[in-house]
Amino acid sequence: MNEMTSPTPSGSTPVPASQLMPPDVFEAAIRAVGAERYHDKHVFHKLLHGGKLNKGQVQAWALNRYCYQEAVPRKDAALISRTHDRELRREWISRIHDHDGFGDAPGGIERWLVLTDGLGLDRDHVTSFRGALPATRHIVESYVHFVREQPLTVAVASSLTELFAPSIHRERIAGMLENYSFIDDHVLAYFKRRLSQAPRDAQFALDYVKTHAQTRAEQEACVSAVRFKCDVLWAQLDVLHHAYVSPGLIPPGAFRPDTAAT
Amino acid sequence: MNEMTSPTPSGSTPVPASQLMPPDVFEAAIRAVGAERYHDKHVFHKLLHGGKLNKGQVQAWALNRYCYQEAVPRKDAALISRTHDRELRREWISRIHDHDGFGDAPGGIERWLVLTDGLGLDRDHVTSFRGALPATRHIVESYVHFVREQPLTVAVASSLTELFAPSIHRERIAGMLENYSFIDDHVLAYFKRRLSQAPRDAQFALDYVKTHAQTRAEQEACVSAVRFKCDVLWAQLDVLHHAYVSPGLIPPGAFRPDTAAT
Repeated sequence: MNEMTSPTPSGSTPVPASQLMPPDVFEAAIRAVGAERYHDKHVFHKLLHGGKLNKGQVQAWALNRYCYQEAVPRKDAALISRTHDRELRREWISRIHDHDGFGDAPGGIERWLVLTDGLGLDRDHVTSFRGALPATRHIVESYVHFVREQPLTVAVASSLTELFAPSIHRERIAGMLENYSFIDDHVLAYFKRRLSQAPRDAQFALDYVKTHAQTRAEQEACVSAVRFKCDVLWAQLDVLHHAYVSPGLIPPGAFRPDTAAT
Repeated sequence: MNEMTSPTPSGSTPVPASQLMPPDVFEAAIRAVGAERYHDKHVFHKLLHGGKLNKGQVQAWALNRYCYQEAVPRKDAALISRTHDRELRREWISRIHDHDGFGDAPGGIERWLVLTDGLGLDRDHVTSFRGALPATRHIVESYVHFVREQPLTVAVASSLTELFAPSIHRERIAGMLENYSFIDDHVLAYFKRRLSQAPRDAQFALDYVKTHAQTRAEQEACVSAVRFKCDVLWAQLDVLHHAYVSPGLIPPGAFRPDTAAT
């Protein structure tokens, strides 16, 4: 997580709204979005990492978050399908491998299913999306549509929440191992893997948007894309919290924890 | 090239229009499209392979065909972006590698540029698309849109012209080596590589559509997709022929062969 709370580096003066932001100011504006609204600040995450959820609630989180995991390689393929830049395609395709697996490497979706297996969820039920909250699916598909439809540089920028991911993953690994008897090191393989993948990808995407956002309007659109993506992550926790924590109103058809297992 | 001219295997009776075609009849209907309208039957290809074109006309062909090569990985990424079937994504992604390259492997687009280099075309000019016929670009982008928008099984079916590709590639390698002093073995690497890639991909796609086209209407849509794709290939040769052979009307801005080089 980045410590900055202002879009300008400390000591510098604000850049007039009509002018291109220098690279460091642009990067600071992107990082400021994470400081303001990345989902590590959501009450659901504090409950999750602090051991305050019961097993049924952790199951609901993992089941719903699967929808997001499964959308990621599709949004990355959508991005690749839109660009004539072969070097960008060659770089970006490693993200699909990271999630779908490649050759003998299992990939992040498979690692996520190891987590849901470990939580006692039936794999076919998870991958069918049947128990997911309808709102979860609307939210994650809106991310796929965003990447498919927005200008390419803006689509790239929407991946930049990865700048903020390693700290939440470290926190999650430590907190969940410490606080839940039903979580062990094995099932958290997904997050351990992302500790190395996310920074590599984030640095590439950050360099890309700094190079390709050539007007102030494009820079602002990139900052907005990071905000949009933070909202995608935040909204997923809102709907989980509403359904499974408070007030605990589970919509028709959505996963209902087995009360005997909680 | 397939020898069949009827959509039913010889000796069998036609399947009523309301019934699902058995797998062999369905496959025969797909192959019959190639027999009728694959672009190996186009007069431009006969001229190309028979050594009847001058160097400027071969340059125009290679320059325009680059647009198609460059569209292929984008249409494949579009297909991947649309499916929840991780196994299909994991299989299909090798097509993107084949064209864009992966790691140290150069890929088909790079091999195509070796061909255009060998023909004396400036690489930046080729990759800029500036000299391509506008119609070429409309035609190839309509293929990308088709794959993005049609039902998934139909999108897969549109790749099945690869069933007919190896024979045209063999014919092209032999004919071009024999007939043109400016073509050597090295610059035809693209086609030699496709001799092994295309049959592997075509068999997977054929098995896929035979499994997933579950109604007669879906089967017919798959056959139509192969027809559409044949038309994509054929139309590219029509516009080349019109501009560079007969009547030889090159549109404004399009590549004009250096008459000294022809």
